[in-house]
Amino acid sequence: MNATAPHGNTTAAAGARLGEVIAALETLLPAESVIVDTEPRRVYECDGLSAYRQLPGCVVLPNTIAQVQAVLRLCHEHRVPVVARGAGTGLSGGALPIAEGVLLSLAKFSDILEIDPLARTARVQPGVRNISISEAVAEFGLFYAPDPSSQIACTIGGNVAENSGGVHCLKYGLTVHNVLGIKFITSDGELIELGGQTLDSPGLDLLALFNGSEGMLGVIVEITVKLLPQPPVTEVLLAAFDDVGAAGNAVAAIIAAGIIPAGLEMMDQGITRAAEDFVHAGYPRDAAAILLCELDGIAEETRAQLQAVEQILRDAGASDIRVAADAAARARFWAGRKAAFPASGRIAPDYYCMDGTIPRKCIAEVLERISALAREHELEVVNVFHAGDGNLHPLVLYDVSQPGELERAEQLGGRILEACVAAGGTVTGEHGVGVEKINQMCVQFSSAELTQFHAVKAAFDEHGLLNPGKAVPTLNRCAEFGRMHVHHGQISHPELERF
Amino acid sequence: MNATAPHGNTTAAAGARLGEVIAALETLLPAESVIVDTEPRRVYECDGLSAYRQLPGCVVLPNTIAQVQAVLRLCHEHRVPVVARGAGTGLSGGALPIAEGVLLSLAKFSDILEIDPLARTARVQPGVRNISISEAVAEFGLFYAPDPSSQIACTIGGNVAENSGGVHCLKYGLTVHNVLGIKFITSDGELIELGGQTLDSPGLDLLALFNGSEGMLGVIVEITVKLLPQPPVTEVLLAAFDDVGAAGNAVAAIIAAGIIPAGLEMMDQGITRAAEDFVHAGYPRDAAAILLCELDGIAEETRAQLQAVEQILRDAGASDIRVAADAAARARFWAGRKAAFPASGRIAPDYYCMDGTIPRKCIAEVLERISALAREHELEVVNVFHAGDGNLHPLVLYDVSQPGELERAEQLGGRILEACVAAGGTVTGEHGVGVEKINQMCVQFSSAELTQFHAVKAAFDEHGLLNPGKAVPTLNRCAEFGRMHVHHGQISHPELERF
Repeated sequence: MNATAPHGNTTAAAGARLGEVIAALETLLPAESVIVDTEPRRVYECDGLSAYRQLPGCVVLPNTIAQVQAVLRLCHEHRVPVVARGAGTGLSGGALPIAEGVLLSLAKFSDILEIDPLARTARVQPGVRNISISEAVAEFGLFYAPDPSSQIACTIGGNVAENSGGVHCLKYGLTVHNVLGIKFITSDGELIELGGQTLDSPGLDLLALFNGSEGMLGVIVEITVKLLPQPPVTEVLLAAFDDVGAAGNAVAAIIAAGIIPAGLEMMDQGITRAAEDFVHAGYPRDAAAILLCELDGIAEETRAQLQAVEQILRDAGASDIRVAADAAARARFWAGRKAAFPASGRIAPDYYCMDGTIPRKCIAEVLERISALAREHELEVVNVFHAGDGNLHPLVLYDVSQPGELERAEQLGGRILEACVAAGGTVTGEHGVGVEKINQMCVQFSSAELTQFHAVKAAFDEHGLLNPGKAVPTLNRCAEFGRMHVHHGQISHPELERF
Repeated sequence: MNATAPHGNTTAAAGARLGEVIAALETLLPAESVIVDTEPRRVYECDGLSAYRQLPGCVVLPNTIAQVQAVLRLCHEHRVPVVARGAGTGLSGGALPIAEGVLLSLAKFSDILEIDPLARTARVQPGVRNISISEAVAEFGLFYAPDPSSQIACTIGGNVAENSGGVHCLKYGLTVHNVLGIKFITSDGELIELGGQTLDSPGLDLLALFNGSEGMLGVIVEITVKLLPQPPVTEVLLAAFDDVGAAGNAVAAIIAAGIIPAGLEMMDQGITRAAEDFVHAGYPRDAAAILLCELDGIAEETRAQLQAVEQILRDAGASDIRVAADAAARARFWAGRKAAFPASGRIAPDYYCMDGTIPRKCIAEVLERISALAREHELEVVNVFHAGDGNLHPLVLYDVSQPGELERAEQLGGRILEACVAAGGTVTGEHGVGVEKINQMCVQFSSAELTQFHAVKAAFDEHGLLNPGKAVPTLNRCAEFGRMHVHHGQISHPELERF
């Protein structure tokens, strides 16, 4: 939307269009499926990125595909924007509502439609919670692999929209690697089916395109996921290091040895201590960093890999290596990692979680750069991350009650992401771009590349009605961001100078 | 192009535009890189689908990215179509030239640019042969997994364009699962980079979209592939069955047991006998069908899986099970499978290879349906296929010198693909759509779905200059195809009635 937008795009006109849509929705849907009162709308004003809030114009909760089609057709006809929402656990503001728009909740699409243990697939509605799939198929010895930390709450539709990862995605892949097919509704209300039960499908690979598309291309109403056999044996080991760089190098050495652990996580001293104090996982409080490594498979294979990993860790200088003796011990090792985000509340009132990804070989170098940036911004950063796939989650600690700290934290976060790009990485590993990292997309991509993204977006959504303003910045915005980064004709960020 | 195209689209006008492009190319590129003489152009008149032939308007062989950009800019400016070509081994006519167009060969892009054994990646040019990558990285104990039968000749650029598979894709995935990044040139000459060394990348997943896009979206000039560690142990077993259905059910049972073989191939009696007579692989000539199963991994795991597979095969009614004793025996077992296509030349002068994919559980049912269709068309069909992933390769045998046989073979091929779709499968598993299966795409997809494909294509190539007429049919074409299928108001194909 530029400054010379026609008068039809004023807020008043947009409000009038929304009013027409609401009136029509109230005749089309059951009364309890259209929320216009302010208080119940507040539930939807933010997702997991709670620093950004916006009350939606209205909320609809359809419970049939035909109703979703009707909502989208109406919004298309009246040019009213639509933001789809699953459980609202996203961390990048991807489900942030629009004041003059419709918030379309898929909460009522919560059925598992079919489980085929022979084909090892499940056909589910988008509002099914991630963990519910694994629970439902456990009786067949199967599980659904991607396991974001929010898996007890987040829904599979949101997982597809964000291409969610988790601890196990190093071995078992991201959501895109575990989704076989979807049905979605286009911005003008058509039902389209992509993929299916076969390994490949002819035509353009629109299925992969949907994974991580952050609600920009269509509204997903059904998903077929791949199920995997539960591994017969699991082992978890914990290694302590006196030096963060040595821990980073150990990660690279494990992968270089041809071993793909089911999970390979790293925590620095700050977050190790916070987690230990919080859940008493048995972590060494004096280690500069710890690694958690999970191996799974048949007994012989897992044992062989465990021995190999122990040797690599010793060679890399681990000061202490412990193998969990049983399921309870394994759960305790993981409990600290899983509680890392809330545990950071013990050391600071607020935290800002970043999600950059870097080549594994740069872990030590980028961690040092993050320390330097933190000192420069006079803030503390603790690091907990999916080390095996180079996906960092630096937590910038701050206190929102201290004037200027939130702004400094956001600025530092942006600098950290730019450092990830400079190292050959990306601004997001699994949390999506949303509204949070939209400026950093200007650092990641060229104008030609962003233009191509916009062209593909327009091929699905000509009028830009689906989740506008998220995920892909306009070229105008990038020009503006570029100007902010330049002082006296000089690019001010050392990170950007490397481009 | 419709019947009322403006006069600028007559053949004469198109020829004039091509003439202008050729004149400009001759000043831009070295003389040996622009082929206009008829005889040397003949080399490019078909790919592996030799039934379709067309002399290209001219052939260019650029050897730098800047030259590819110049060629595309020129063609864009003059609205001249461009068909990109790798080794020309494709089986669906994807590289079929256009009379008034440019054939852009990537043959000179044949360098391996970088091997990173630690990150386990290789950065290569598109004209590098598939097998050259595995050869180059063997010294590091690594290999590149997708292995189409044509791997000694086909190039990695063509593999990406067709999303090629191979014997090992059941375990290691298709090309899309093994490509980490590409650089491509847009239809108007911009260089765009997608993906990289990290597991995920922000923005829309255009990288996956490129895999299998059949040259419609851009011209790939660089590819970063994932490398895998060579498995320490490999076992191959052969099982004979007196009944084709029992062999099909054995395949489903192996997968259902949670075992993912490195390869799981099936051959029926016709092709088993032809292959045995051709290469003396030691196949049982009296079996109704044979299965070849390859297992790989560490010694203990592979041994455990071998025992499990043997038991499953016995339970499924295998009459004979043999495990290859050594590397020579393993090579002999595979030699027959790899020579299956040429071996069919012993039983018929010509063959037409289909590439449908079906859910594994339908193998027995679809094979019966294919037999019935073959009888109806008075032609013989032999079957050799990637059973583990349900990817059928029925070979329709015919004699082109017998009037009407080619037409009958094509008709039967179409019916077979439609039967695959009716069983919940797709019209292509790994050979692409090209010109060969374009009518069957009308059976596979709805008008809304095809419209979405066209919109995405247009987002990359507004003027439809890149490989026009391939892969995705126009709605007009489908309407025409639909009319051909209806006689006296009745749909004539039993396959279609199931939709």
